[in-house]
Amino acid sequence: MDSGRRDDSTVITMPESKSNGKGKAPAVAMATTKAAPGGWKKGVSIFDFILRLSAIGAALGATATMGTTDETLPFFTQFFQFQAEYDDFEVFLFFVVANGITSAYLVLSLPFAIVCIVRPHAVGPRLLLLIFDTVIMALTIGAAAAAASIVYLAHNGNPNANWLPICQQFGDFCQSTSAAVVSSFIAAFLLMFLVVLSGFALRRN
Amino acid sequence: MDSGRRDDSTVITMPESKSNGKGKAPAVAMATTKAAPGGWKKGVSIFDFILRLSAIGAALGATATMGTTDETLPFFTQFFQFQAEYDDFEVFLFFVVANGITSAYLVLSLPFAIVCIVRPHAVGPRLLLLIFDTVIMALTIGAAAAAASIVYLAHNGNPNANWLPICQQFGDFCQSTSAAVVSSFIAAFLLMFLVVLSGFALRRN
Repeated sequence: MDSGRRDDSTVITMPESKSNGKGKAPAVAMATTKAAPGGWKKGVSIFDFILRLSAIGAALGATATMGTTDETLPFFTQFFQFQAEYDDFEVFLFFVVANGITSAYLVLSLPFAIVCIVRPHAVGPRLLLLIFDTVIMALTIGAAAAAASIVYLAHNGNPNANWLPICQQFGDFCQSTSAAVVSSFIAAFLLMFLVVLSGFALRRN
Repeated sequence: MDSGRRDDSTVITMPESKSNGKGKAPAVAMATTKAAPGGWKKGVSIFDFILRLSAIGAALGATATMGTTDETLPFFTQFFQFQAEYDDFEVFLFFVVANGITSAYLVLSLPFAIVCIVRPHAVGPRLLLLIFDTVIMALTIGAAAAAASIVYLAHNGNPNANWLPICQQFGDFCQSTSAAVVSSFIAAFLLMFLVVLSGFALRRN
């Protein structure tokens, strides 16, 4: 008899919740969430983990590429040998440090990402990841943009400020710094996606 | 008799939910949320709105300051008058466009922020704001960092690339571009805070 009553109430409830059943709607939604616990949230968490691994690759690649950039030209004068190294530009030094921090953070965030996979409804680790992802994303994109603006200058120069392009002389240097900047932008966009993904996963808990 | 039974069940439920009442805990939490509807969430939404207004001010200030930067030196040669304008640097042009977009977006986002104040438990507008805030934050911080790296170069130059500082000649130009960069960074940090705030507000809905 009890189950019969429940069937009845389901049939009657639907029009009710459309007309004035404001109190009933959340209860129904909650029952749905309970019915498939951690279904799409687990999927989101696994996707988050994979994106995080890719971002580690991109950030480490950017750090390594920029950090090993060093070109010595095959000719020299009596007093001077022409050499370009990444730390000739303070911005590139900042870039290496920032991308190193990003890589380290992403590696340290992996355990929290695993916790999110194991417990898809946990709010704490998810919120922690959202906050730190946002901060680190800002750091990464800032470093990438600052370096990009110097790389652009190295390629094109600026006639108004009388800054000449140096890429004709230091071609390999320019190529490898450009690659590092692109790699860092990829890491930043992956982090941006991670932030949005965390927002979605926090949606209904 | 019914109300008496309910009182009893409350007393008994508390230890139950500690031992094995996994199914009961969300129901209790939900009841608490219902008891104080939109308490702290309304506060968060109002704070969000105020931060958004401040960010508009900062972004508009950055756009206007950079967009009106123009210095003509009081001496000139027969063929050339020394003048520095913001669009002598492509990066500064990008900065103006990006901060203009940020300002426009922030103004357009105000209605959604108001919706969030009126309906503190609405998930849709909040999630929309989180996603677009993240993207616009990335744009703003990228523009600010790229411009900052050029401003740094204008102040200090780079002896390795033989790029000389131009701030000795164009002092006012440097000052006003620096101010614009700082203003844009403030807007970016406010947006960062808005993203984190949206994450908090999405936490339990």
